[in-house]
Amino acid sequence: MSHITKVKVHNYSAGPCILPQEVFEQAAQAVLDFEGSGLSILEISHRSKPFEAVMAKAQSLVKELLGAPEHYQVVFLGGGASLGFHMVPLNYMKVGGKSAYANTGEWATRAIKESKLVGDTVVVASSEDKNFSYIPKGFDIPADADYFHFTSNNTIFGTQWKQFPKSPIPVVCDMSSDIFSRPVNVADFALIYGGAQKNMGPAGATVYLFDPERLGATGRKLSPMLDLKNHGAKESMYNTPPVFAVYVSMLTMEWMKRMGGVAAIEKRNAVRAKLLYDAIDRLPVFRGTTAVEDRSVMNATFVLTDAALEPTFDALWKEAGISGIRGHRSLGGYRASMYNALPIESVQVLVDLMEEFARKHG
Amino acid sequence: MSHITKVKVHNYSAGPCILPQEVFEQAAQAVLDFEGSGLSILEISHRSKPFEAVMAKAQSLVKELLGAPEHYQVVFLGGGASLGFHMVPLNYMKVGGKSAYANTGEWATRAIKESKLVGDTVVVASSEDKNFSYIPKGFDIPADADYFHFTSNNTIFGTQWKQFPKSPIPVVCDMSSDIFSRPVNVADFALIYGGAQKNMGPAGATVYLFDPERLGATGRKLSPMLDLKNHGAKESMYNTPPVFAVYVSMLTMEWMKRMGGVAAIEKRNAVRAKLLYDAIDRLPVFRGTTAVEDRSVMNATFVLTDAALEPTFDALWKEAGISGIRGHRSLGGYRASMYNALPIESVQVLVDLMEEFARKHG
Repeated sequence: MSHITKVKVHNYSAGPCILPQEVFEQAAQAVLDFEGSGLSILEISHRSKPFEAVMAKAQSLVKELLGAPEHYQVVFLGGGASLGFHMVPLNYMKVGGKSAYANTGEWATRAIKESKLVGDTVVVASSEDKNFSYIPKGFDIPADADYFHFTSNNTIFGTQWKQFPKSPIPVVCDMSSDIFSRPVNVADFALIYGGAQKNMGPAGATVYLFDPERLGATGRKLSPMLDLKNHGAKESMYNTPPVFAVYVSMLTMEWMKRMGGVAAIEKRNAVRAKLLYDAIDRLPVFRGTTAVEDRSVMNATFVLTDAALEPTFDALWKEAGISGIRGHRSLGGYRASMYNALPIESVQVLVDLMEEFARKHG
Repeated sequence: MSHITKVKVHNYSAGPCILPQEVFEQAAQAVLDFEGSGLSILEISHRSKPFEAVMAKAQSLVKELLGAPEHYQVVFLGGGASLGFHMVPLNYMKVGGKSAYANTGEWATRAIKESKLVGDTVVVASSEDKNFSYIPKGFDIPADADYFHFTSNNTIFGTQWKQFPKSPIPVVCDMSSDIFSRPVNVADFALIYGGAQKNMGPAGATVYLFDPERLGATGRKLSPMLDLKNHGAKESMYNTPPVFAVYVSMLTMEWMKRMGGVAAIEKRNAVRAKLLYDAIDRLPVFRGTTAVEDRSVMNATFVLTDAALEPTFDALWKEAGISGIRGHRSLGGYRASMYNALPIESVQVLVDLMEEFARKHG
């Protein structure tokens, strides 16, 4: 294997996305030789003592970083949050019951579609009227629904719930794109879930953090593979877990802990976001695309006021080694995803370049 | 990262299991710097051109290695073959229809349970009467069932179908533990599926190779996440795929191609299996636990004729750097899993040691 000669790339990919450099180095080492065992992390049994320790550590780090109540359980499953969209109504909607959803974008819409396949589904709030550019406020959650579901951060549109809605019923939240970016009060949630491939790790694992006492009350006979209660009881080992994705998630969570935990990370993320949003607001050649109060700290979406200049702007950031800031293919424009591991230096490079672009073309 | 100093371990793990050493080296390099991009394989977008090329290559290698008909499709999903057990009846059993299964062990039993949750399920053959130590023969498959399901190799019990049953209805096969170990006539199967973590790659991906023309005929409204037709139409990118597991699977399949393909691998596997089974049969201190004609080339199960000597035998193979040959926790005894990447040298080390043990304790 060659010596590390990483080209300097500023990775703004919306996910899978940047993870800490030291995690890449630890992960690469473990692919060659896992903890001095002479075996690769890719060839060890998931039933081996060393991997059982990895799984237990990953589970406890999720709870520790988020300050979860002791009795909450953590499982890591394959299939992505998209499989979670299907599992949520199966595990939380009673037979003949109903669910309540907020629709704040593409992923919320997909979650709603999955719920409708299972049973009666009420959309109690939506920002679809303005192309999901804001977070709905002041809506009611019906007390007779079985659960309320929302998406805490909308990766594509660049909005984020700053205050979580008060709910008379159990709350389920897809936190795929901002989990571990800020403290949350876990006890307010029956279930928090999310694909690993933003702040937590590589693609291939989905984390479910849940109160087991809220499960098993639907009257529905479930496949054991889709039954959160079963996976919790089997300590995330009902079947072969995605070993490597769990291991890299554990490494990334250890890094978060070394960084001072989620509260410290939140402060650092706020500094980066202010740096970028200030530039968007200060420079008239750029325009933010979301309501200011709902701006995501993770994904900043913006456009050029003169779209004809896009090729010029694109050449500039590509030249600077920036990667992944084109907006989602459904939306166009730009999106700078600033997940936990993105260094502030990368944001400074982007802001400097925006300044330069504004001077020349403002 | 330290220089490669792999301890010599003979890895007989039943899965996740040994992969080629060169694959570990290529994978570790890609975790640091994927194809000279300056980015880790763990941080690139699954929608990036380089990963789209990985996915396309992995899909085409599955078809090339197995000689699949042109119109067959390949998808890689998370969730393991256990999720496949649930998806099979959903995708192939008509509403009000029925399925037919052969029960040859633990994984077949789990697949049957999942089918029963979906609808009428007939077990047309079983070797449960003799603790799954043989493969049933001479049974009938009902022409009025929607599909026939069997498990080509039984990892835990060490049996393997040498001839596939003739079927008047579409055949679905879980090939998790012997896919790519021998040529098969893909056109005989509506669906071949399997967890990656034996011959194909690391844990975290499951391959589905299927005839799309056999899908969409059940009259059942499916979640798009559980709908093989949807995943095929979206070219395995309906949602974020398990990027790294697909990449390492691609590397492993490239290695298989360099090794001469599946026909050459089958010959090599036969030599290894003969070496080990001959020792089991020749040395009276050992006894094979399955019907001779149904012995798996992948997983050789055996016991000591004097179980009191187990601690002595265990000390011997541990001393020799052998790992993972204790039998499944449900069965006891020994199981030597000889997946494609296991060098014949590792089998020779085990056989030499069995000879030594027999000389001392025979």
